[in-house]
Amino acid sequence: MTAITKLFGTDLPIIQAPMAGSQLSAMAIAVSNAGGLGSLPCAMLAPEGIGKELAAIQAGTKKPYNVNFFCHVPPAPDTVREAAWRAKLSPYYEEFGIDADKIPTGPGRMPFSKEAADVLEAFKPAVVSFHFGLPEKALLARVRSWGSKIVSSATTVEEARWLEAQGVDAIIAQGNEAGGHRGVFLGEDISTQPGTFALLPQVVKAVKVPVIAAGGIADAKGVAAAMALGASAAQAGTAYLLCPESTASAVHRAALKGPKAAETALTNLFTGRPARGIVNRFMREMGPMNPAAPAFPLGTAAVAPLRAAAEKNGSGDFSPLWSGQNATGCREVPAAQVTKDLSS
Amino acid sequence: MTAITKLFGTDLPIIQAPMAGSQLSAMAIAVSNAGGLGSLPCAMLAPEGIGKELAAIQAGTKKPYNVNFFCHVPPAPDTVREAAWRAKLSPYYEEFGIDADKIPTGPGRMPFSKEAADVLEAFKPAVVSFHFGLPEKALLARVRSWGSKIVSSATTVEEARWLEAQGVDAIIAQGNEAGGHRGVFLGEDISTQPGTFALLPQVVKAVKVPVIAAGGIADAKGVAAAMALGASAAQAGTAYLLCPESTASAVHRAALKGPKAAETALTNLFTGRPARGIVNRFMREMGPMNPAAPAFPLGTAAVAPLRAAAEKNGSGDFSPLWSGQNATGCREVPAAQVTKDLSS
Repeated sequence: MTAITKLFGTDLPIIQAPMAGSQLSAMAIAVSNAGGLGSLPCAMLAPEGIGKELAAIQAGTKKPYNVNFFCHVPPAPDTVREAAWRAKLSPYYEEFGIDADKIPTGPGRMPFSKEAADVLEAFKPAVVSFHFGLPEKALLARVRSWGSKIVSSATTVEEARWLEAQGVDAIIAQGNEAGGHRGVFLGEDISTQPGTFALLPQVVKAVKVPVIAAGGIADAKGVAAAMALGASAAQAGTAYLLCPESTASAVHRAALKGPKAAETALTNLFTGRPARGIVNRFMREMGPMNPAAPAFPLGTAAVAPLRAAAEKNGSGDFSPLWSGQNATGCREVPAAQVTKDLSS
Repeated sequence: MTAITKLFGTDLPIIQAPMAGSQLSAMAIAVSNAGGLGSLPCAMLAPEGIGKELAAIQAGTKKPYNVNFFCHVPPAPDTVREAAWRAKLSPYYEEFGIDADKIPTGPGRMPFSKEAADVLEAFKPAVVSFHFGLPEKALLARVRSWGSKIVSSATTVEEARWLEAQGVDAIIAQGNEAGGHRGVFLGEDISTQPGTFALLPQVVKAVKVPVIAAGGIADAKGVAAAMALGASAAQAGTAYLLCPESTASAVHRAALKGPKAAETALTNLFTGRPARGIVNRFMREMGPMNPAAPAFPLGTAAVAPLRAAAEKNGSGDFSPLWSGQNATGCREVPAAQVTKDLSS
């Protein structure tokens, strides 16, 4: 028993990190049924999709689960910036025979909204977690009103203190090792983002709410180390990506199993916000952090056709190959097994 | 007892990180006498200085100690690049009334050399550690011939494998959290440098020699976490910087005690190679990693007079405020106490 297992009502202090684009309800169900906290990422789902996946979870498990939302403020479309970015990518469009003028724009990622809350209310999940801070107060109050525990990620001690002041029930200390999007929401400087070994104990010292460790945790030793540093639970994402319940693409799986899986970097090329993925051709050639990339989440549009074309050829050169810095926990075993092994 | 305490002959699995510019023999003596492995950093010492400090250590302790050297290949002076860099810094020279034409050039940091080995041979320290890879084979063979255990830092799994292939006795897994210079020597890309939580277990899996954890370790919990991840010992540097045995400057100490100590970044502004320090005005205004900075170690010359002028006014705006990402272990207590507390 830890403060987190008590708070969430789980058997194990293991949280499966929500991974938008790489998993849906099947993963959440498997992890929750195994005694961990399974998570449904909603950033790439419209309200109907959220409802469908939540219904599947409700049918698939009686255990607590987590529903995760991004809570960015969508930027105004910027046609000048978008055009300049597409001009930079034009050699790639030519290489793949893509008509740059026909690439649709799109939101890429959805923030938490009134519509999402309407869907969520019918399910009243045990835990609702947010990324990029917290939604506006009225929306957050709705979530709180039906009893869901509220969690968000901190990438600095300052963000942890801010979240605690807003009344969150627990804080994820997201070390720089973590795969996917950095939860950073106060400031934009990624050069000062601390690793788990530095961030976790400082967050534990700084706040009174229980702290969940994330970033670089791949096995039971990693969980034990996180606990030694004061965590009440550990969150793992990358370790679940090769499970049969994962929807990760073939090129993503191949990269995770490949010899270069340890070579990851933060990149804003795929969405506009820094997220950690395995270095590929696009990241190498454009620089992983490119100041010309569109504002989040508008970066997805320009790269989407390149990704599709490359993946058709079995190449992950233009795909976001999200991964933390420690992919050694990735195994092609059921998510229940990963969950049990993490807690053993 | 761990593989490292057996190998080095110490009582405790604690290594005081060598910190050139911030400590000399007094720190090494105190830590070794307390049962840890004290270290003498030689990168900023000429052979006479090394001999003097080693004589002091020999007089001060009968316990094992470590002597540390950089082993970079000094670059050819590049007058064009140096002039361009000084031109970029000219507003600062004007601000402080410094005549840029009178700034001497200088090596900044010394690599391990035949002359240093000549001095070292008389002392035959239990451990000799290197940063930036290893020295040339003939020099390394000399060190090995008199029985010193040989250690170097790896910042990636690839570097760890390379070091093991060269026959080192132990490897320091230097996570991205660590203060001071990154030991990186294969490649120059710092965007892919892993944190301790990811690097340490992967190095432990990859090599057979014992592994020393470094980066973000500030207290006994950090040591326990490192051990959980497979380390045979822990190396701490930042935690010793406020000790009376530290020679850290007043502005450096003030920054470590200040509210912004957790805000660190890798910077090449002070020497030419990436090293982690607390963000100050110079780093903010020039960008912490500036491609125009001279090649290591030539970067020290241009900033030296700015640093001196600012420090005269009690300001650390132009000083390298080396620190890891976790300065919470810094206390104004003797180094022996820090050593004991780390191992408790």
